[in-house]
Amino acid sequence: MSNKIYFTPGPTGLYPTVSQHIHKAIEDDVCAISHRSKKYEAIHQAAVENLKQLLELPSGFHVFFTGSATEIWDRTLENCVEESSFHLVNGSFSKRYYETALELNKKATCTEVPFGEGFDLSKIEVPKGVEMICLTHNETSSGVSLVVDDIKHIRKNNPEALIAVDSVSSVPYPKYDWGQIDTLLFSVQKGFGMPAGLGVWVVNDRCIEKSLQLQGKGRSIGSYHSLPSLLSKAKSHQTPETPNVLGIYLLAKVSGDMLHRGIANIRKETEQKAETLYAAIAKSPVLQPFVQNYEYRSKTVVVANTQVLPSDVNKLLSEGHMEVGSGYAKYKDTQLRIANFPGTSVEQVQKLADYLERL
Amino acid sequence: MSNKIYFTPGPTGLYPTVSQHIHKAIEDDVCAISHRSKKYEAIHQAAVENLKQLLELPSGFHVFFTGSATEIWDRTLENCVEESSFHLVNGSFSKRYYETALELNKKATCTEVPFGEGFDLSKIEVPKGVEMICLTHNETSSGVSLVVDDIKHIRKNNPEALIAVDSVSSVPYPKYDWGQIDTLLFSVQKGFGMPAGLGVWVVNDRCIEKSLQLQGKGRSIGSYHSLPSLLSKAKSHQTPETPNVLGIYLLAKVSGDMLHRGIANIRKETEQKAETLYAAIAKSPVLQPFVQNYEYRSKTVVVANTQVLPSDVNKLLSEGHMEVGSGYAKYKDTQLRIANFPGTSVEQVQKLADYLERL
Repeated sequence: MSNKIYFTPGPTGLYPTVSQHIHKAIEDDVCAISHRSKKYEAIHQAAVENLKQLLELPSGFHVFFTGSATEIWDRTLENCVEESSFHLVNGSFSKRYYETALELNKKATCTEVPFGEGFDLSKIEVPKGVEMICLTHNETSSGVSLVVDDIKHIRKNNPEALIAVDSVSSVPYPKYDWGQIDTLLFSVQKGFGMPAGLGVWVVNDRCIEKSLQLQGKGRSIGSYHSLPSLLSKAKSHQTPETPNVLGIYLLAKVSGDMLHRGIANIRKETEQKAETLYAAIAKSPVLQPFVQNYEYRSKTVVVANTQVLPSDVNKLLSEGHMEVGSGYAKYKDTQLRIANFPGTSVEQVQKLADYLERL
Repeated sequence: MSNKIYFTPGPTGLYPTVSQHIHKAIEDDVCAISHRSKKYEAIHQAAVENLKQLLELPSGFHVFFTGSATEIWDRTLENCVEESSFHLVNGSFSKRYYETALELNKKATCTEVPFGEGFDLSKIEVPKGVEMICLTHNETSSGVSLVVDDIKHIRKNNPEALIAVDSVSSVPYPKYDWGQIDTLLFSVQKGFGMPAGLGVWVVNDRCIEKSLQLQGKGRSIGSYHSLPSLLSKAKSHQTPETPNVLGIYLLAKVSGDMLHRGIANIRKETEQKAETLYAAIAKSPVLQPFVQNYEYRSKTVVVANTQVLPSDVNKLLSEGHMEVGSGYAKYKDTQLRIANFPGTSVEQVQKLADYLERL
């Protein structure tokens, strides 16, 4: 690994232990083992059990693996929505989830707010009869988060609907109340600091039941990555297809490392580092926080308007062997996106903050 | 890497150069780069161009990446079949391709022969009006191959249908006539000796046109991995989702190494090694080739009936730091499956053959 610290919102820099885990995996021939062998099953089981512990999942929840989080947008809709889904859209990724539903011929509807704004979840009006409500906890494009505790309002007002949460760029930071959520999706190249190419799909029994209902009606719920297919293989700690074995091995290791560090510590450090970053942005004469509502500001993807081109910011930061992300799409030249994932230390973030203050 | 040689049919042992390429990738922060950056685009382009050269693809063909070859079964059917597909079934994987079509609510039909038997492609009767004919070049479960040159009969007799070829466990060995094929799929943990978690999808313009037709009719052809979506991103050497960047990097490197070695040499060595293996099986008092028809015997996955339990064969082989695969599913205890991929040398195969002869 180079000595550069990546504060890019994903793919991001590797979690500090990943490089040594990859070397060990090669030494131990992890890539050569059969995905139907006991050796693979032990790896798969370790990854699932570590994640269940890290996310504090209660019984009745399952963990499945896919090729990407993008794939899981499809799979949630294919398996759990016969007719209609409803989406809260406040940025490019929540919008893409909504568009995916339309492309899959669902009757999808949405409530949209301008880029940089968030939602008061106690005031959301959901159309009647919607089967799934799709929320994006952390908008990687704009740096807006939902208030996790407020998901309960959505549940209370819509008890029949399934609630799906895209948590791609926030896991493992948020502490979810699993009574308020039915399915959660994320990928590993953000909060886990791993090589991209693996999606993680958390689902409860309500989702499984819904998929079986749709299947019973003769609706296609997909093939190898349908919920019944994933569940059937997961029972023996396997996947329907030949999976990203190295990715699952690394996830077992990194989630184990995070458990050792303690999820409470990770959450505390994330909040401390976010505070450091927002304070530096406030002090800098050329930066200002993009998200106006303090309550909706993301702790894991900090977005700032910048009067200095992001490429010039990165030229300066390269002296300190650091790099931040530029703004998303049309904000490429006018915003910075700074990842605040568990892979960077308090000291590294302080060093970045010192540079940002002096911009 | 351990010094063990894996003759398992996939995942198999790493191609000899993979370990050093992974080390270099970590050193160069390949896993940290953005999938929307110029650096990523250069890696993506190199992988596609090397594959096009290795497979000798003419213009009008495109190369896309997915999470697995299993995924591509879905995608071929979603994008190119409105009503009906037809499948040649002669083993567990060709059967699964057929079942996938049924799960996706296609009117799929098939012609099936017993496990271990093959097809005379000049005599296949295809139902009228079928939109896609799905062939499995190399049945990883049974060790039966199609005769590549005979695919022309399928084309000649069914000029309107698209022809899909599953070549999961044979690429890069077969020399295809691309005038006879519309789409080809494979994964990288077999012939390329790479970590699993990446599928490669080759499609021609006829497939793209068909997907656009279906889309125009209001049929869902999927979302991020529909052909129009993949094509649109591929034009700028990108993927719709955050892809397996490390996998695509390794594929660029390994296919580059194979080009350096020469595809003609790889083919010649594959045939020479297959001959060595079948000769050893013939000489062994406890082994016999499973596939009776010499013409249909796979060059890349050699299957033998064994009177010695595969686990006992592997105990003996472990003295020589080697391992072979056991039979598929119900043949687990009565057959060996020996991978003959480009990653093993003539000398290594000769050493294995010496052991097998003495069984």
